[in-house]
Amino acid sequence: MKSTLIVSAIQQTCNEDRQTNLAFSILKIREAAEANADLVVLPELHLGPYFCQNEDPSHFDLAQPIPGPTTDILSTLAKELKIVIVSTIFEKRAPGLYHNTAVVFDKDGSIAGKYRKMHIPDDPGFYEKYYFTPGDMGFTPIETSIGKLGVLICWDQWYPEAARLMALAGAELLIYPTAIGWDPEDAKEEKQRQLDAWITIQRSHAVANGIPVISCNRVGFEQAPDSTKGIEFWGNSFIAGPQGEIITQANASEITLLNCPLDGQKSDQVRRIWPFLRDRRIDAYSDLNKRFID
Amino acid sequence: MKSTLIVSAIQQTCNEDRQTNLAFSILKIREAAEANADLVVLPELHLGPYFCQNEDPSHFDLAQPIPGPTTDILSTLAKELKIVIVSTIFEKRAPGLYHNTAVVFDKDGSIAGKYRKMHIPDDPGFYEKYYFTPGDMGFTPIETSIGKLGVLICWDQWYPEAARLMALAGAELLIYPTAIGWDPEDAKEEKQRQLDAWITIQRSHAVANGIPVISCNRVGFEQAPDSTKGIEFWGNSFIAGPQGEIITQANASEITLLNCPLDGQKSDQVRRIWPFLRDRRIDAYSDLNKRFID
Repeated sequence: MKSTLIVSAIQQTCNEDRQTNLAFSILKIREAAEANADLVVLPELHLGPYFCQNEDPSHFDLAQPIPGPTTDILSTLAKELKIVIVSTIFEKRAPGLYHNTAVVFDKDGSIAGKYRKMHIPDDPGFYEKYYFTPGDMGFTPIETSIGKLGVLICWDQWYPEAARLMALAGAELLIYPTAIGWDPEDAKEEKQRQLDAWITIQRSHAVANGIPVISCNRVGFEQAPDSTKGIEFWGNSFIAGPQGEIITQANASEITLLNCPLDGQKSDQVRRIWPFLRDRRIDAYSDLNKRFID
Repeated sequence: MKSTLIVSAIQQTCNEDRQTNLAFSILKIREAAEANADLVVLPELHLGPYFCQNEDPSHFDLAQPIPGPTTDILSTLAKELKIVIVSTIFEKRAPGLYHNTAVVFDKDGSIAGKYRKMHIPDDPGFYEKYYFTPGDMGFTPIETSIGKLGVLICWDQWYPEAARLMALAGAELLIYPTAIGWDPEDAKEEKQRQLDAWITIQRSHAVANGIPVISCNRVGFEQAPDSTKGIEFWGNSFIAGPQGEIITQANASEITLLNCPLDGQKSDQVRRIWPFLRDRRIDAYSDLNKRFID
C-alpha cells in the first residue's frame, strides 16, 4: 500500500432514472478525483432503486454483462481520472444465472478484478436469494496498483469469516458497498440498535484484522412496488482505521462525499501491538466449516 | 435459557493479599445473590495481581489444581447461594504443565465444567506464553442449570473464530473474564482507541452470533516487579444484549457490581430478523484453518 492513500466513498440516493443516477455518481467521482482520491467506492447496486423489495421476473432485465455498458463507462472514467473505482453491478453471467457483483477498475481503466457476493440475504423486503446466485469466486482480494482490496458486499459485512479470509489472503483494506436501511415501522430504539450493530460489526472487522474499512451505503426512502411499505436507507457510510477508529462518517440522510487519507504504514504498526494473526488456533477451527454442532 | 436470567459481573481490584481479594469477591457474590442473580462472573485470575508482567519461575507457586483449595471455597458458596459462578484459576495440571482456566460452578455447587484459555498472548507486560500452555479442550460451551455458557478468556475476545465456535456449539451467552489495561505511557488518544476497539470487538461477537455478552475486567494500577512500568487496568466491564446493545457498563476505575436481567427469548427473536447462521458459506471457509494464504 502507498504511504498515504486517499480514499473516498459516495453516499448517494439511487432513483428510478438510471442515467441520472450514473451521471450523479460520475460527478461525485470527479469531485473525489479533484480531492486527489486514489480510490472511490460507490454504494451497492448504485444504478437504480433497490429492486429486491419484491420478486418480479422483469427485474432481471436490469442485469448487464461484465464487461458491459456500465463497466465501459466507468472504465473510461477511471482511466481519465487515474482513480481506482469500486462499483457494484447486477451481473448477467448467462441466461438464468445472475450475480450481485463488485467490479474494481484500476487507474489505467482496466478491470482489476471482480467479486461476486458470497452471502445472500433473504428477508421481508430483501428478496435477494431470488435474484442473485451465491458467488463462486471465494474471498479473494483484488490486486490493484494501490494495494490488495478486500471487496465484499452488504450482507457479507455481518460475517467475520469473510473479513478474516480476505485478510488472510493479503487484503490491505476492506470495502463494503451496501444497501441497508430501516423498516420505517420499527421503533426508534430498534432502529438505533440495528444501526449501531451494523457500524459495530464492520468496525470489528478492522479491529480483528488490523486493516481499514470503507463502508458505503445509499440514502433515501424507496417505496416497495405495489405496497405502502418501503426501506429508509440509513446512510452512515464511514471510513475506519485499522484499530476500528472511525475517521469520517456521513449521517443518515444526506448525500455525502467522504474523503480521507489512510496511513499506509499503520496496519503494520497496529498488528505489532495486537499480533492476533500470530495466535490464531488453526488447529482448533475446523468446526467453522460446519453449519451447527448438534 | 430461563425466560429471564439475572446476570452479574464483579469489576474489582486484585491486590497482593490473595485472601483479602477472595474475601472481597465472596462479599460481592453475596451481594449479587441478594439481587437475585442467577450467574456471577469474576475477572480473569482474580485471586491476585496480574503476575504475567514479568517471567519469574517462582510465580508457578501461585498455581492450584482443579479441584483445589479455591474451587472448594467457591463450590461451597455456589451451593449455599444457589448461584452459578464463573471463576478463573491459574491451574496446575501436572508438574511443568499450567493453564489459564475458567471454572464454572453450578447452583448445586458442582463443577459444571471448565475452559482452558485457547489463545495465549505474549506482548511486553503480558508474558502469558511463559506461564500458560494453550488450552486443549477446544471451544466447548459449559452446560449448566441456567443454560449453555460460552466461557472464553481475555485474549480470546479478539478472535471472532472463538465466539463463532461457541455459538455453533450452542452457547446461549458469551462470557469473557478479562485482565486488560493501558500502558500509562501511551497517549490519551491511543488509550481511547484501544478501549473502543476492545468494546467494539466484544459487542460484535454478540451481533454476529445473536447472543448476549458479559465482559468482566479488573481495575487499578499494578506495578511490574523491579520496574517503574505497570498496567492501568481499564475496567469498563459490560453486559450487552444479542444485538450488541450495551445494557450496563462500569467505568475505568471504580469497583462495580454490574447486575441486569437478560431476556431469554431475545436471541431467538434477533436471529429471526438477522438469520446469519442460515447463510454462512461453509463450503468456502476452509482457508480459515490456514495461518496465511501466501
